[in-house]
Amino acid sequence: MGPITNGRVLFNAVPEDYPVPGETTVYDTTQTIDLENVPLNCGFLVKILVLSVDPYMRGRLRAAEGKSYMPAFILGDPITSGGIGVVLRSEFTGVAVGSHVRGLVLHQEYIIAPDLTGLELIEKDPRLSWSAYIGAAGMPGETAFMAWKEYSRAKQGEIVFVSTGAGPVGSMVIQLAKQDGLKVIASAGSEEKVKFMKEIGADVAFNYKTTDTRAVLEKEGPVDIFWDNVGGETLDAAMEFAALHSRIIECGQISGYNGVPPPMKNPALIIAKCMHIHGFLVRYLRPKHAATFRAEFVPKIASGEFKFTEDVSRGLQTVGDVILAVQKGTNTGKAVVVVADE
Amino acid sequence: MGPITNGRVLFNAVPEDYPVPGETTVYDTTQTIDLENVPLNCGFLVKILVLSVDPYMRGRLRAAEGKSYMPAFILGDPITSGGIGVVLRSEFTGVAVGSHVRGLVLHQEYIIAPDLTGLELIEKDPRLSWSAYIGAAGMPGETAFMAWKEYSRAKQGEIVFVSTGAGPVGSMVIQLAKQDGLKVIASAGSEEKVKFMKEIGADVAFNYKTTDTRAVLEKEGPVDIFWDNVGGETLDAAMEFAALHSRIIECGQISGYNGVPPPMKNPALIIAKCMHIHGFLVRYLRPKHAATFRAEFVPKIASGEFKFTEDVSRGLQTVGDVILAVQKGTNTGKAVVVVADE
Repeated sequence: MGPITNGRVLFNAVPEDYPVPGETTVYDTTQTIDLENVPLNCGFLVKILVLSVDPYMRGRLRAAEGKSYMPAFILGDPITSGGIGVVLRSEFTGVAVGSHVRGLVLHQEYIIAPDLTGLELIEKDPRLSWSAYIGAAGMPGETAFMAWKEYSRAKQGEIVFVSTGAGPVGSMVIQLAKQDGLKVIASAGSEEKVKFMKEIGADVAFNYKTTDTRAVLEKEGPVDIFWDNVGGETLDAAMEFAALHSRIIECGQISGYNGVPPPMKNPALIIAKCMHIHGFLVRYLRPKHAATFRAEFVPKIASGEFKFTEDVSRGLQTVGDVILAVQKGTNTGKAVVVVADE
Repeated sequence: MGPITNGRVLFNAVPEDYPVPGETTVYDTTQTIDLENVPLNCGFLVKILVLSVDPYMRGRLRAAEGKSYMPAFILGDPITSGGIGVVLRSEFTGVAVGSHVRGLVLHQEYIIAPDLTGLELIEKDPRLSWSAYIGAAGMPGETAFMAWKEYSRAKQGEIVFVSTGAGPVGSMVIQLAKQDGLKVIASAGSEEKVKFMKEIGADVAFNYKTTDTRAVLEKEGPVDIFWDNVGGETLDAAMEFAALHSRIIECGQISGYNGVPPPMKNPALIIAKCMHIHGFLVRYLRPKHAATFRAEFVPKIASGEFKFTEDVSRGLQTVGDVILAVQKGTNTGKAVVVVADE
């Protein structure tokens, strides 16, 4: 078996607003790899199995000079995201053939890693697929679990409002909040998503495209905790109907990712309602919460006590479409690209 | 001695933007009181000595139907604010003639209190005047001390930016921050105030009317803690030059009190910088911090270790002008109205 194609997804052009499949990113087949003979230089060869596509990636599809909390993708180079692969060959002590690694990886069928920098060896519960480990049992699950533990100060009987409640983070937040005895109001952008939010326990679930968020919050609030994945008008509404001493957990503001970021209309409410707003990036919460996440949360995913959905597409050539779907919210469940089977 | 005039300050008209002395509030002399014979009905008669004029009062000079964290003043009735008086006569057990009470009191030369609701008996350190007890040793001092203790999570060597740093709250925050070993950047609106901020320890003090706030913060930041008394562009600038894991203590947003409240331009920074924003009202911090404030902070005021300035005017007829001065920032030091001497 000689050289074979090593398919890649390259960052090709900075999008003006929404990313354009085949333009913003392109699927490239010009590179080849000889799996048996490619030199490893004391590293190891990984076959990518699954890749995660997440909302935050939009921020990296920008010009290099723009500042943000993650560097811009490099034009002409493969993009990266959370992923899992299996080791095909190894010259690296401690990484055996057949073991699995998880981390921020290139969108490429095969990668050669010099060492474990940015990667971790990972084992799978037999009841779960690998894709779960980049979803409910991976970064989005960690995001929900760790920030809820750290910032919600949830008390039984309180009211939480979760935006994008059918998404990989929001759906976990709904279930964490129900476990803590809260009343859950949850919003999403389709009837199918509303149905799913009810199935996982939301007391009040609504389609924000057909129902006025302010009217729902006025009736069902005041909101003690707002889990913000969207920003903009939803954040303004949550603040308007927030309770005294309320907490806002700032996880995302996707309403501003593909255009001009919307302002917060009335920040004076922060004082009047003694609000606490917590922005976070999950990487800073891992040192404190990773062990509890693995010990307490992942088993609930594996046992089915916590439910999750996946929207799976196959092949690196689909990545561009999936990136757009995640920005538009047309996916249902955690967006996962299966690159190869084991 | 028969009935004498009981001067009052009445809420007369809702202002459109800045309050107008003699129109928004009026000094009224139509009421009389017979100090010796007025029935007390088991209450006590108080002669008001000093009254506090504070930025938040603008929020109460509104139409009754507007919602906020404090009720609107009632048109035609006397306004209220923090004040201290001496008891002239008493039928109330536990309140002796000659004792002093502090609380939210009517702007009136003499009041009859039915009981101690909203009032507390208070003693004075001989080194301080009564006015200090509605300033550095009163609500503004409490505001600075309690929120700093509760929310700053200050660490030695960090950088704090204090807006309205020459004011009764900001000047205390500067001194608290220096005591904790921070680098202090402070802004105010006149050269005289800049001089005072330097005297009390600000490392970098500037006049925001003549110096660009963003340029100062870009050079002297990044800002670990922002003490916000103004909101608007100053808040936007502080967020732009905030450090990762920074804290914003939302004490006031006076830039929006006399017009349209300005938005927060870029709330997405809350996530990117993992910021924590804490709104508060001092009344909710008192149960936890009042004892420490009395035991630790007031002695530092009395000894002169912590410095403060007062801008004293005499007589209830000056209240309207003082209210306007506090909104415009033309006062220098804590605005105090001395109504009467003991």
